[in-house]
Amino acid sequence: MGQVITFGEVLMRISPWGNKKFIQSNVVEFFFGGTELNVGISIANFGGKVKHISAVSDDFIGEAAISYISKFGVDTSSIVRSKRPLGVYFLEVGAVMRPSTISYNRSHSSFSEIKPVMVNWDKALVDGNWLHWTGITPAISQGAFDILKEGLTLARQQGMTVSADPTYRRGLWKYGKDPKEALIELLHLSTVFIGGINEINEVLGTDYSYSNDDFITASKELMKAFPSIEKVFDKIRTSLNSSWHKIRARMWNGEEFKETEDLDITHIVDRIGTGDAFAAGLIYGLQRFDDCKAMEFASAACALKHTYEGDVNLATVDEVTAILEGNTSGRLNR
Amino acid sequence: MGQVITFGEVLMRISPWGNKKFIQSNVVEFFFGGTELNVGISIANFGGKVKHISAVSDDFIGEAAISYISKFGVDTSSIVRSKRPLGVYFLEVGAVMRPSTISYNRSHSSFSEIKPVMVNWDKALVDGNWLHWTGITPAISQGAFDILKEGLTLARQQGMTVSADPTYRRGLWKYGKDPKEALIELLHLSTVFIGGINEINEVLGTDYSYSNDDFITASKELMKAFPSIEKVFDKIRTSLNSSWHKIRARMWNGEEFKETEDLDITHIVDRIGTGDAFAAGLIYGLQRFDDCKAMEFASAACALKHTYEGDVNLATVDEVTAILEGNTSGRLNR
Amino acid sequence: MGQVITFGEVLMRISPWGNKKFIQSNVVEFFFGGTELNVGISIANFGGKVKHISAVSDDFIGEAAISYISKFGVDTSSIVRSKRPLGVYFLEVGAVMRPSTISYNRSHSSFSEIKPVMVNWDKALVDGNWLHWTGITPAISQGAFDILKEGLTLARQQGMTVSADPTYRRGLWKYGKDPKEALIELLHLSTVFIGGINEINEVLGTDYSYSNDDFITASKELMKAFPSIEKVFDKIRTSLNSSWHKIRARMWNGEEFKETEDLDITHIVDRIGTGDAFAAGLIYGLQRFDDCKAMEFASAACALKHTYEGDVNLATVDEVTAILEGNTSGRLNR
Amino acid sequence: MGQVITFGEVLMRISPWGNKKFIQSNVVEFFFGGTELNVGISIANFGGKVKHISAVSDDFIGEAAISYISKFGVDTSSIVRSKRPLGVYFLEVGAVMRPSTISYNRSHSSFSEIKPVMVNWDKALVDGNWLHWTGITPAISQGAFDILKEGLTLARQQGMTVSADPTYRRGLWKYGKDPKEALIELLHLSTVFIGGINEINEVLGTDYSYSNDDFITASKELMKAFPSIEKVFDKIRTSLNSSWHKIRARMWNGEEFKETEDLDITHIVDRIGTGDAFAAGLIYGLQRFDDCKAMEFASAACALKHTYEGDVNLATVDEVTAILEGNTSGRLNR
Amino acid sequence: MGQVITFGEVLMRISPWGNKKFIQSNVVEFFFGGTELNVGISIANFGGKVKHISAVSDDFIGEAAISYISKFGVDTSSIVRSKRPLGVYFLEVGAVMRPSTISYNRSHSSFSEIKPVMVNWDKALVDGNWLHWTGITPAISQGAFDILKEGLTLARQQGMTVSADPTYRRGLWKYGKDPKEALIELLHLSTVFIGGINEINEVLGTDYSYSNDDFITASKELMKAFPSIEKVFDKIRTSLNSSWHKIRARMWNGEEFKETEDLDITHIVDRIGTGDAFAAGLIYGLQRFDDCKAMEFASAACALKHTYEGDVNLATVDEVTAILEGNTSGRLNR
Amino acid sequence: MGQVITFGEVLMRISPWGNKKFIQSNVVEFFFGGTELNVGISIANFGGKVKHISAVSDDFIGEAAISYISKFGVDTSSIVRSKRPLGVYFLEVGAVMRPSTISYNRSHSSFSEIKPVMVNWDKALVDGNWLHWTGITPAISQGAFDILKEGLTLARQQGMTVSADPTYRRGLWKYGKDPKEALIELLHLSTVFIGGINEINEVLGTDYSYSNDDFITASKELMKAFPSIEKVFDKIRTSLNSSWHKIRARMWNGEEFKETEDLDITHIVDRIGTGDAFAAGLIYGLQRFDDCKAMEFASAACALKHTYEGDVNLATVDEVTAILEGNTSGRLNR
Repeated sequence: MGQVITFGEVLMRISPWGNKKFIQSNVVEFFFGGTELNVGISIANFGGKVKHISAVSDDFIGEAAISYISKFGVDTSSIVRSKRPLGVYFLEVGAVMRPSTISYNRSHSSFSEIKPVMVNWDKALVDGNWLHWTGITPAISQGAFDILKEGLTLARQQGMTVSADPTYRRGLWKYGKDPKEALIELLHLSTVFIGGINEINEVLGTDYSYSNDDFITASKELMKAFPSIEKVFDKIRTSLNSSWHKIRARMWNGEEFKETEDLDITHIVDRIGTGDAFAAGLIYGLQRFDDCKAMEFASAACALKHTYEGDVNLATVDEVTAILEGNTSGRLNR
Repeated sequence: MGQVITFGEVLMRISPWGNKKFIQSNVVEFFFGGTELNVGISIANFGGKVKHISAVSDDFIGEAAISYISKFGVDTSSIVRSKRPLGVYFLEVGAVMRPSTISYNRSHSSFSEIKPVMVNWDKALVDGNWLHWTGITPAISQGAFDILKEGLTLARQQGMTVSADPTYRRGLWKYGKDPKEALIELLHLSTVFIGGINEINEVLGTDYSYSNDDFITASKELMKAFPSIEKVFDKIRTSLNSSWHKIRARMWNGEEFKETEDLDITHIVDRIGTGDAFAAGLIYGLQRFDDCKAMEFASAACALKHTYEGDVNLATVDEVTAILEGNTSGRLNR
Repeated sequence: MGQVITFGEVLMRISPWGNKKFIQSNVVEFFFGGTELNVGISIANFGGKVKHISAVSDDFIGEAAISYISKFGVDTSSIVRSKRPLGVYFLEVGAVMRPSTISYNRSHSSFSEIKPVMVNWDKALVDGNWLHWTGITPAISQGAFDILKEGLTLARQQGMTVSADPTYRRGLWKYGKDPKEALIELLHLSTVFIGGINEINEVLGTDYSYSNDDFITASKELMKAFPSIEKVFDKIRTSLNSSWHKIRARMWNGEEFKETEDLDITHIVDRIGTGDAFAAGLIYGLQRFDDCKAMEFASAACALKHTYEGDVNLATVDEVTAILEGNTSGRLNR
Repeated sequence: MGQVITFGEVLMRISPWGNKKFIQSNVVEFFFGGTELNVGISIANFGGKVKHISAVSDDFIGEAAISYISKFGVDTSSIVRSKRPLGVYFLEVGAVMRPSTISYNRSHSSFSEIKPVMVNWDKALVDGNWLHWTGITPAISQGAFDILKEGLTLARQQGMTVSADPTYRRGLWKYGKDPKEALIELLHLSTVFIGGINEINEVLGTDYSYSNDDFITASKELMKAFPSIEKVFDKIRTSLNSSWHKIRARMWNGEEFKETEDLDITHIVDRIGTGDAFAAGLIYGLQRFDDCKAMEFASAACALKHTYEGDVNLATVDEVTAILEGNTSGRLNR
Repeated sequence: MGQVITFGEVLMRISPWGNKKFIQSNVVEFFFGGTELNVGISIANFGGKVKHISAVSDDFIGEAAISYISKFGVDTSSIVRSKRPLGVYFLEVGAVMRPSTISYNRSHSSFSEIKPVMVNWDKALVDGNWLHWTGITPAISQGAFDILKEGLTLARQQGMTVSADPTYRRGLWKYGKDPKEALIELLHLSTVFIGGINEINEVLGTDYSYSNDDFITASKELMKAFPSIEKVFDKIRTSLNSSWHKIRARMWNGEEFKETEDLDITHIVDRIGTGDAFAAGLIYGLQRFDDCKAMEFASAACALKHTYEGDVNLATVDEVTAILEGNTSGRLNR
Repeated sequence: MGQVITFGEVLMRISPWGNKKFIQSNVVEFFFGGTELNVGISIANFGGKVKHISAVSDDFIGEAAISYISKFGVDTSSIVRSKRPLGVYFLEVGAVMRPSTISYNRSHSSFSEIKPVMVNWDKALVDGNWLHWTGITPAISQGAFDILKEGLTLARQQGMTVSADPTYRRGLWKYGKDPKEALIELLHLSTVFIGGINEINEVLGTDYSYSNDDFITASKELMKAFPSIEKVFDKIRTSLNSSWHKIRARMWNGEEFKETEDLDITHIVDRIGTGDAFAAGLIYGLQRFDDCKAMEFASAACALKHTYEGDVNLATVDEVTAILEGNTSGRLNR
C-alpha cells in the first residue's frame, strides 16, 4: 500500500483541564494537531504509511511538534523549520448547551510564511499514492496555496488519488485570494470529495437542501462541474448539545447512493478532529475496501474519535471494526 | 445602570478532582464562593457594576479571596479584614444516584463575627441602585442579621430595589433568632422575591402545592402579606439524578403569570451556585428587560451555570442570549 | 457480627487521567484493588469487620498496598510479604462505544507464588464467620488453588458461610489445572453462589438462556449438583455503551424467586469492581437482612460503585439505604 | 515493647504545590499532621506500637483523617468524633530568605472542644508504657489541658515514662490559663524533657545562654525544680536560610553530657514536623538504646525528616541507621 | 502617594512543571508577565497605587490577562483590546549548568500593533506621579515607540518622575528604528536610570569596566550627556550556575556612591522578573525612602523574587523589610 | 556517520512527583528508560543516527514504549513484540542524606524472555558502525546473553566498534551463568571499555585503588588481558549527598592519560541515567573528536543529564559544547 501524503499546518492546542476556562486555573495541557495532520496520524494509527509535510518553528516548540508526530510513526522528513513561531490555538471545552470556544494565534505562524522553494514535491511524493488536502491550507496564505497547488498538480500527473475536504472557514481567508476561486482551482485537481451540502453549495453557488435527494443531485452537479471528482462522501452530525451527538454518513460514487445508520455518541469526550477522523477512515478504507465499507469504516472511526482526548484519532483498525460488527456496548477488554 | 450591591459570606471551597473523595487523593482544588458573592460575580461577568460587602480573614487566605473577587472586576473596597479565619467548605462531587456532599467549617468564621460597626452602609451604597440578600446571611449570626437589616432599611429609604432569595437552611440557624421571624422582618424590606413554594410556605405557614395554580395563589398571598414585594420568580428543577437535571422558571408579577420551557441539562459539570446564577440573571435582566424576558434570561443563565466548574457563573451575556435564541446545540465557536 | 475473611491477590492499578491513553500523557494515577479485596474493603466501608489474606511484595510498593488496605480499617495481619513484585494492571478508560482496556502484569507476582505454608488458616479464621472466594484465585497458580481449598475446607468445618463468585476468566488459567474441575471442587465447599447463567452453564455444562425461567431451573440444577449451595444471586447488566449501563438483580434461594427493578446508571464514572460491590453488598446484607432485602441492598451498592473512582466501593450503608428508599435524584447533602 | 501513647490535635494541612502562594494556583495538596500525631506516626514507621488519642470531626474530613492515621498502622480506636470541624492549617512554603508562612483555622476545632468525659484513659493506656505530650495541647483549651493532666497523672501512677516537649507558642494560649503555670503542672508529671534553653528559661524564668556549659547548668536546675525529670535532650538548628539548615543534638542525663556532630541539610524538602521527628527518634531510641545512641538516632531521624514532604517522618529504622553508620552520600538503593 | 504608571506588553508565559522540557509532558502551567507589568504588579503588592497601560487580545486569553492583572489590584482601565492575539512566551526552566530557555511568539501580538490613537495619555496620567519604561517597549514596533515617547513627553511636562530601565535586547529590534538613537531620545525624557555598565556603554558608546570606579565615572558621563537623569542604580548578579546566584546593588546619585552587600540566593525558584523586582523596589523605595535605603529595599526585593514562581514579585513590604533587618534565615512564620 | 546500535531492555519507570513516596500520593508519572536505550536516545538527541533493538510487550504499554523511543527519532524497526509484560521499575526520589530507592518488576519481562530467533542481526546491523552493550543485558537471561554475544560477534566480523559498559549488578544475575565468565567472553568482543576500577577489578580479579596511577596500571592490565580493547574511559563521581555531586572523567588510550576538572552539580534534578549520558557522550564524541575531547564532551554531557527529569539525556550538542567552552553559569537563553 502506498504512502498517504498530508500537507498542512501543525498547531499547538492549549486548553485547561476538564471544562475550565483559562481564567480559572493556571494548569493547562497541550496537544498538537491540525486538520491534515490529524488525518495523517489517524491513518498511521490504523497501520497505514503516512508522510506529513509542513513548516514548524526552529525552537523547542517545533522540536516538540516533530517529536509528537514521530511518536505515531508518521514520516517527518519533509517538515521544514522556520524562524517564525508555531501556530497556537487555545481551547475552552464546553458542555451541554455551552459551546466549546477556540481562539487562534496562527496568522503569522511558521506555516503561514511557507514558500514554494521550501517543499521539494518530487522527493516528498516519491513513495506516495494518495494526497489529501483541506480547505484550511489554501486559506492561510498565498505561499500555502501555491505549494498546495503545485503538489496537487504533480500528484495528479503521477496518477495519485487526491482527496479534498474543502471546508470553508470564512475567518481564515485574509491574504486576498477569493475563497471560491481558490477552492475551484484545487477541486479540479481532486478525485475524492469529502464534504456535504454546505461545501457543494459554496463552490457551485447552489442552494441544495440536506435531503438525500438533494445530496444526490448536488453530487451529480459537482461531478459534472469537476470531472476529476469520482466520489462524494458526506458526514451528517446531529447535535443535541455540546455533549451528545449522533453521526451518520452517506455517499454518491457516481453509481449508487448509500447511507449508514446513526451512531449515538451519548457522552462526548472531545469533538475536535472528528471530521478529520472521518476523512482518515475514508482514505484508509478506500485504499482497502469497497466504497460502502469504506464509508462505514469512516463513520465508525469518526464516532470513536469523540472518545479520545486531543485532536487525533487513536483508534486502531480492530477498535473500528468492532463497531462495524455491532459491538458498541463498550464491554471491558482484558 | 447603577451598581448592584451584594452582602454575604465568602467561603473557600475545597474539593478533590473529578468524583474523588478526600480519602482517595491528596490533590485537591479550591474556589471561592458564597451565595451572594456568586450572584455578584455572575452579574459582573454579564458586564454589570457590582460591589460585594463582606468580612474576610487577615491572612493570605483572605488575601487570595479578595484577589479572586477582584479578578472578576467586582468592587472589593467595602470588604473588611478580621482576625478570624475565612469560612471553608469541603465538597465531594457525586454522580448519577450518588449525591454531592458538603461539610462546612464556617461557624466561627471571619464573616460570622462581623459587627455593625464594621460596615459603613452610607458609603457602601453610594453608587448602588439594587441590593440583593439571601436567607443564608441572617442565619449566620446576630451581627450578620443586624448589619443586613440596617443595609436593607437604608436601601429602601434610598429607593433602591431589594431582591430577596429567602432560602431557608435549617442547619445554619444556631444563634437563637427564630428563622421565620427573621425572614419576615427582612422580607418587609424587599421588593423582588426570588423563591418558590417552599419558601412561601415557610414564611406564610401555608401548605401550597407545586402546581402553577397554587403558585399564583401563593404569590398573591405573599404580596398581600408583604406589600413591598412586587414580583415573584420561581425556578423549578427536575432531577433525574446527580448528573442530569431539567430547569424551568415561572413568575407572577402581580399582573401576569408566565413560565419557560424546560432546559435539559444532560451532563452536569457542577451544580453548585446554579440557584445564584438564576438570581443573577434575574437581577441583570430586570435592570434591562421586561419581567418575562428577565425570567427567560435567568433561566438560561441558570442552565449554563451547570456547565462551569466552581461556584460562580462564568457565562457572558452573549452566551446566555444564544440560548434564548434557541442555539442549544453547543456548536463549536472558532 | 463475625469477621468476613477475603483471600486473593492485591493488584496495583495504574491508569492515565480521564479517558487518556498511556501514549498521551506521562501523568497517571494508581489505586490498589483485586476482586476479593474489593469485596472486603467495601464491607469494611459498610462498617463490617473484615480481614484480607494475601501475599504482597517486600518493597515500598507492598508497603503502600498494605497501607492502602489499612486505611479502610481492613485487618492486614495475615498478609505475608514476598520477594516477588506485586501484580500490576494497566487500565485505559473508554467511553461511549470505546471499551476500557486492561493489560496485566501479574503472572509471576508475589501472590501467584504463594505457598500453603505461608497462610496459617487456623489463626486467620479465628474471628471469622464468613469466607468469600472468587474464580480468579484458583486460576492464578497451584499454590493459590491449594491454599484456597485448604481455607474453604476449614471454614466449612467450622460452620462458616462460604460465598463463591466463580467468575471464569479464560486468559488466567495457565498452570495446568482444568478450570471446570477446579471450580467444581471449590463449589462443593460453598454455600452462597454469586453468579449467573454463564457461570452455571460453565460448571454444569448446560446451555440455559438468560430468561427468568431458565435462571430458576438452572439454579435448581446447580443446587442439586452442589448440595452445599443454598442460595443463588445473579446480577444483570444491560450496557448501552461504555458510559451508560442499567443494573438489576435476581435470586433463587430454594424457595422463592425475586428480582429488582433496573437502576439506570446514566453517567458511569468507573465500572471496575462493580461486580465486587454487588458481592460485598450481598454478604453484608445476608449477615443482617432477609435474602430479598440483601439482594436489593447489593443491587443498589453495585449501582453506586459506578460513581466512585478506583476499584473499591466507597459507599456507606446510609448511601445505599437512601437508594433503596427511592432517593436516586442525587440531591445535594449539606 | 509497650505501646507509645500520643494525645493531641489532628490538623489538616493544605498547601499549594512547590513554592506557590494560594493567590497563584487553584490546585493544592493536603496532608494530616499535628505535633503529637507526627511523633506517633514516626514511631510507627520505625516499627513501634503506637496509639493516638484525639477528637476529629464527624464528617468525611474526619473520616479521611482517621484513614490517614490508620494507613501508618497507628491504633485509632481511642479517637472520638465531634460535631465541630477538624482544625485546618494553610501553608505557603518559602525558599532561601523567604520564610514559610502558616495560617491556622483551629480555634473552634473538634479537638479544642474536647471534654474529659470523651477520653477513657484507663482503657486508652491499657497497653501503653510511654506517654508523650507537647506544649501545644495545654495551650488549646481548658478541656485539652484537663484531659492531658488526667492522662499524665494516670500514666505516672502506672509507672509509664512520660516525655514532654514543652514548646511554648504564644499565639495559641487564649482560654485564660497562664502558660507558665500550666507547663509547670504538667512537667511535674514528666520524666523526659525534650527541649532546649528557650523552654528551660521559659519555665524556670531564667536567662541561660545557648552555650554547652549553660545547657548543663540549666538542665541541672530544671531537674532540681522538677525532680521527676531524669533526662534533658536538646536539638540545635542552624539556619543558613529557609532551604539550608544544620542539625545537631545534645543531652544531659544527670550523669553525662554528650553532643552530636552537625548534619548538613543542604536542600530542605519540607521542614514541618522535624522537631517531632527528633522526639519520635528519641522515644523509639530510649526504648531500645542507651541515651547517647538514642540521641544520635533522634538527630539523624530529624535530619532525614527534612527530605520527606508532609508533616510526618517516613524514614525507617534502616534509613536512620544508615546515617548513623556514616552513609550520608545518598547512594541509590536498587 | 501618586499612582505609578507602567506601559508595556503583557505576555502569557507557558512552561512545563519543574525542570521538564515541552517534549516530556503535556501538562504545563501559565502565568502572565511582561517587564513593565512585572514592575507594576510588584509595586501594587507593596501597597502602591499602580495603573498598567497595554493592548491585549479581544478573546478569552486577553480576558484572562486583564483578570490576572486585576487580581493584584492594578488599575486596568487604560488597557485596550485588539483583534491580534496576545504575545506568548514559552519557557523551559534549567538547573545548575543548564540555562533556562525562552522562545517568543510576540512579533505580531496585540501590543506590537498598538497605535497612538489607542492610548489617551491625558486621561491615563491623571492620577500618576511616576512613569516607568524599559528598553523592551521601544524595541517592539514604531507604534509602541511613538506612544511611549508621547507618554514620556507628557509625563515630564507634568513634572512626573520618569524611571528608565533601558535594557537592550538585540533580537527584538526589527522594525527599522536604530536602537541607540531610540534609547537616547527616550533617556532625554527620563530622570532615574536603572541600569549598569552595559546599558551605559551602549548609549554612550563607551567601554567602561564593571569596577566601582568605572561605574562612578560612567554614571557621571551619563548624567552629563542626559541632564535630566539625576540618579543611577545598578544591580550586579554573580551567577555560580542556573540555580545559585548572588545579588548586590550600587548607586550614584550625583553626590554619593553606595553599594550593598551580596545577598546569597542558594536555591533559586524562578529567576524571571528579578530585574523587574529590583526596579519595582527602587520605585517604591524612592517614593518613600532616601536613595540608599531605596537601593537596599530594591536589592532585597530582587533577592526575594527569586523565591516566587512566575514573573511577578509577590513579596510584601514586611517581607522585604525583614531581610533589610537581617532576618535572612527563613524562620517559619506561624 | 554510521548508525549506533544499542541492544537492551526497555523499562517503564514509575515514580511519584517530587520527593514523595508511593504511600503519600496516588498521582505518579512515568518515563521509559533502560541503560542501553538511554545511551541510544541521548546520541539521537545529539543528532546521531541510532537504532535500538529490544523486545517489548504486545499491549498498549509496549505501544507507548515504542512511541516514546520513536519520538526521539531512534529507529524502532528491530524491536519485537512479546506476550510478556514490559519490565517496570518503581522509583522514590531521595534528597540530601536520603537515597533514592528503586524496586524492580522485570524478572519475567518481555525482554527477559527474548530468544535468539527474535533478532535478525544481519538486518539489524546493516547501517551500523558502532554497537554498544552493558553489563545489564547479559545478567538478565540466557537468551539475552546469547543474542548479545551473537550480535557482538557479527559486529566485530564487520569491523564495527564495540563499546562495553560492563556494569556489574549482583542482584540481577539469576539464571545460572557466572557473571565474571560472561563478562569476560563479551569483553573479548569489545574495543572501547567504559568503566572504572571496580569493573576492572571485577573482571581481572585484581584489587587496584582509585588513584590515577592505579587506574593507568589497571587499564594496561585490562588491555593485556583483552587485546581487542583499545581505550579505557572512567567517570568519577563524588557524592556530598543525594542532591549534590561532582563529576570528572579520566582515560587511558594506550598512549596517554588525561583527566578532566570536576564539574560541580549543586542541585541535582535527576541522577538516573547519568552514567548512560556519559557513555552516549563518549560514543558520539569518539565518532567525531579526538579521545580527549570525546572524554570532555562525555563528562559535560553526564553533568548536564543531572538537570533533566527522566532516564534520558535531553541535552543537545550546543548545550554540551557551551559547558566545554566554560559557560556553566546558566545564563538565560532568549
